[in-house]
Amino acid sequence: MRPRQSRRQFLIGGAAAGVGAAAALGTVSALDHAPAAQAEAPLNGGHTVPFFGEHQAGVDTSPQAHAAFVGLDLRDGVDREGLRRMMRLLSDDAARLTQGAPALADTEPELAAVPAGLTVTFGVGARFVQRAGGQTPAWLRPLPAFGIDRLRPEFSDGDLLVQIAADDPVTVAHASRMLLKDARSFAAVRWVQRGFRRAYGSTPAGTTMRNLFGQVDGTANPVPGTPGFDEAVWSGQGWLAGGTGAVVRRIHMDLDGWDALDPTGKEASVGRRLADGAPLTGGSEHDEPDFSATTPLGFPVIADYSHVRRARGEQPAAPAERIFRRGYNYDDTPVGGDVSNSGLLFVSFQADVDRQFVPIQRRLDELDLLNRWTTPIGSAVFAIPPGCREGGYIGETLLG
Amino acid sequence: MRPRQSRRQFLIGGAAAGVGAAAALGTVSALDHAPAAQAEAPLNGGHTVPFFGEHQAGVDTSPQAHAAFVGLDLRDGVDREGLRRMMRLLSDDAARLTQGAPALADTEPELAAVPAGLTVTFGVGARFVQRAGGQTPAWLRPLPAFGIDRLRPEFSDGDLLVQIAADDPVTVAHASRMLLKDARSFAAVRWVQRGFRRAYGSTPAGTTMRNLFGQVDGTANPVPGTPGFDEAVWSGQGWLAGGTGAVVRRIHMDLDGWDALDPTGKEASVGRRLADGAPLTGGSEHDEPDFSATTPLGFPVIADYSHVRRARGEQPAAPAERIFRRGYNYDDTPVGGDVSNSGLLFVSFQADVDRQFVPIQRRLDELDLLNRWTTPIGSAVFAIPPGCREGGYIGETLLG
Repeated sequence: MRPRQSRRQFLIGGAAAGVGAAAALGTVSALDHAPAAQAEAPLNGGHTVPFFGEHQAGVDTSPQAHAAFVGLDLRDGVDREGLRRMMRLLSDDAARLTQGAPALADTEPELAAVPAGLTVTFGVGARFVQRAGGQTPAWLRPLPAFGIDRLRPEFSDGDLLVQIAADDPVTVAHASRMLLKDARSFAAVRWVQRGFRRAYGSTPAGTTMRNLFGQVDGTANPVPGTPGFDEAVWSGQGWLAGGTGAVVRRIHMDLDGWDALDPTGKEASVGRRLADGAPLTGGSEHDEPDFSATTPLGFPVIADYSHVRRARGEQPAAPAERIFRRGYNYDDTPVGGDVSNSGLLFVSFQADVDRQFVPIQRRLDELDLLNRWTTPIGSAVFAIPPGCREGGYIGETLLG
Repeated sequence: MRPRQSRRQFLIGGAAAGVGAAAALGTVSALDHAPAAQAEAPLNGGHTVPFFGEHQAGVDTSPQAHAAFVGLDLRDGVDREGLRRMMRLLSDDAARLTQGAPALADTEPELAAVPAGLTVTFGVGARFVQRAGGQTPAWLRPLPAFGIDRLRPEFSDGDLLVQIAADDPVTVAHASRMLLKDARSFAAVRWVQRGFRRAYGSTPAGTTMRNLFGQVDGTANPVPGTPGFDEAVWSGQGWLAGGTGAVVRRIHMDLDGWDALDPTGKEASVGRRLADGAPLTGGSEHDEPDFSATTPLGFPVIADYSHVRRARGEQPAAPAERIFRRGYNYDDTPVGGDVSNSGLLFVSFQADVDRQFVPIQRRLDELDLLNRWTTPIGSAVFAIPPGCREGGYIGETLLG
C-alpha cells in the first residue's frame, strides 16, 4: 500500500510541476507539501467532456473505460409532446451529470461529483422518429438477416438508445440510474448491456484496444480530426445533419473454441500478428496489409478467408464503406457449467448504415474464418441526432 | 480528444520530471520529447502486488477498482491429492498473472501484460477442509439464519473462493478465465459476483468508498499497519495461522425506496452526514460519534435505530468485534421493469467469524433502520489460508 500511495503523490506532484518551466523548479517541494485541494486537480475523476456542441459527445470522444448501453421501448400513448418533454429532461440531466453536477432531481448528489469523462449519447429508433412525425432514414430499421446471426430479442432493437460512458464505473452506475428514473414514465428498459476496455491510465494513450480473444481490435479505425472521418461519420441530411447512425451488436465469442487454436491458426484467421497487431505481411500495426504478397509456395500470406481481408474488401479500402468503431468487451456471468460468457459489444458509427456498414457485414457473413468462433446474438440500429446548444435539447431538430 | 491526450502526456511528462530536482529542470522538454517507452513507466497498468508472503495478497491490499468473486463446488472424486494438484496449479497461475506474466498454459498471453495491481486470493469452505483431512474451524459453516435474510442458493456457499481484483477490468476478465479453466477439471463454477469501486485515479488515495446509496461506507474500518489490525484479521491457529476468515454477502439495495426518503431521513437512518460521512454529532468523517449527545428535546442525536449505533454496539467499539471490510458495489441488469438492480458485495475479513462478525450482524438483524432498504440475498463463509513462499502453494499448510 505505501509504495502505491507515494507513487500516486509522485504523479500528482509531477503534474503540478509541469505547468511551466518556472513551476517545474518547485517540483520537489510540491511533492512533499502539496495540500490535498491542489493535489486533487490533476486526477482523472474531474475530467469533463463538453455536453453542448455541434455533435453529441460520446461518438468522436476518446473511448472511456466503461460503458452502459441501454435500449428502451416507448410506452403506449407517449406522443410528440411526450417525446419532447422526455428529451428535454434527459438532456438537462446529461448536461449536468457530464459536468460533475447533480441532476436536478438527483437523489444521490454525492455520487455526481466525479464525472471521470462522462458522456451521455442519445439515439432514436424508427418508432421514435415516426411518433415525432419526422422523416425516417431508409437505413433506420433492423439490419438485413445475416446467416451467422442468432439474434435474441432481449439484446436487440429498441426505440431509444442511451449510451453512458465514463472512466469510472460508479459514475456510469449513478448516471444510468438518474437517467433511467427520469425516462421511466416515458419508456421502459428493454435491455442493458455493459462493457469495458482497459482502465484509464493502464496503457499509454492511443493504444489500440485488445478484445478478449487477445486480438488488437480497431487498427484500421478512422481517426477523429483526420481527413475522411467527418465524411464517414457525420450525416448532412435533414434533422439528422450533424448526427450519425449507430449499429450496436452483441457478438458472443467462443473462447473455448478459440483457445483450442494454436497461435499460427489464430493469426491466420485474423491476418494480423497477435503480438502487435501488424499485418502478416510485415511492418507494424498501422502499416497497410499487402494482400498481393505470397508465400514461397504461392499461397497468399494473408489468406482469403482472413478477417482483415474480408472486412477490408477492395484495396485500398473503399472510402464509401468506412465505419468508425467504438466497441467494448463484455464478460458476463457464465451459465451451464461454462467458465466464461464473454464477447464484444460491437458499436459502429457511420453516416449511412446501408451504404457503409451493410456491405462489410455481408462480406463477413459470406466468408470470414472468425465466424467459426463468433456469433452475433444481439443487433440494433439507431439514429444519433446532432448535438445542441446550451438551452436546447437533443432531438430538437426532430421535435422542435 | 486532444485536450485529453495532452493532459495525459502532461501527467506522464511531469512524473518523469519528478524523479529529482535536477530532472525537474528538464520538465518541459520531457513533455515534448519523452519516448513512449519512458512514458509508460509511471502508468498504473504496470503496478504489481507481490504474490508470495506471509499472508495472501488481496486482504490488506488497498482495494482495487474491480473484483470478481467466484464460488466453486468441488467435483465428486477430487480427493486430497486432487486438491493439492489444483492448488499448486492455481497458485502458479496466480503467481505469474499477478506479476504481469502469462499463466503457463495462457492462451491469450497478450492480455497478461497489464497486471494493474492484480491480486488473486483463495478461500476454502468446510467441505474442502474435510476432504483435505484438516481441522475445520468452528465458524467455517453457513452463518446462522438472520431474520432479514432472503438468501438465494445461486449467490451462496461454495467449497472454494477465488477473489480476483485489479484496477483494470480486462485484467480481471483475463485472470478469471485462466484460473477457471485450470480449475475446471477439479471444480465447477457455482457463482460469479462482480463488483466495482471508484476507478484508480478518480479520487485521492485514502478516500473512503461511497456505496450506491451515496453513503460514505467503511469509515470505521481498521487500517492495515495500525494497532489492532493484525489481531482483528490474522488467525494464529493451526493450518490457518497467518490466514483469516472471509464473509461474502450479497446485499440487495432498494434504491427506489431509499430515493423516496429525504436527506434528513437518510442521515438519521445511517447516523452520519451524507455530504462527508461525519457523525451527526459533528466533526469530520473519522471523528468518533457521540452516542450520548441529545437534541434540545432530549432525543439522541444519533438515533437508537441508526446503522452506525447498531453496528458499533458498545462504546468504545469492542475490540473483540472488529472486522475489516473490503466490499464492492454491484450494478446488474435490471429485471421486471425496474431501472436498476444494485447493491453491495459485502466482504469482511476477521480471524474468527463467530466471535467478530456474528454479534454485529445479530444486532443489525434485530434493529437497524437500514434493513428497510437492504436485503441480504447471498451469503458464504470461507477460510483464507496463509500465504506461501516462492516454490510453495496456497493451501500447503492444509495439504502439504
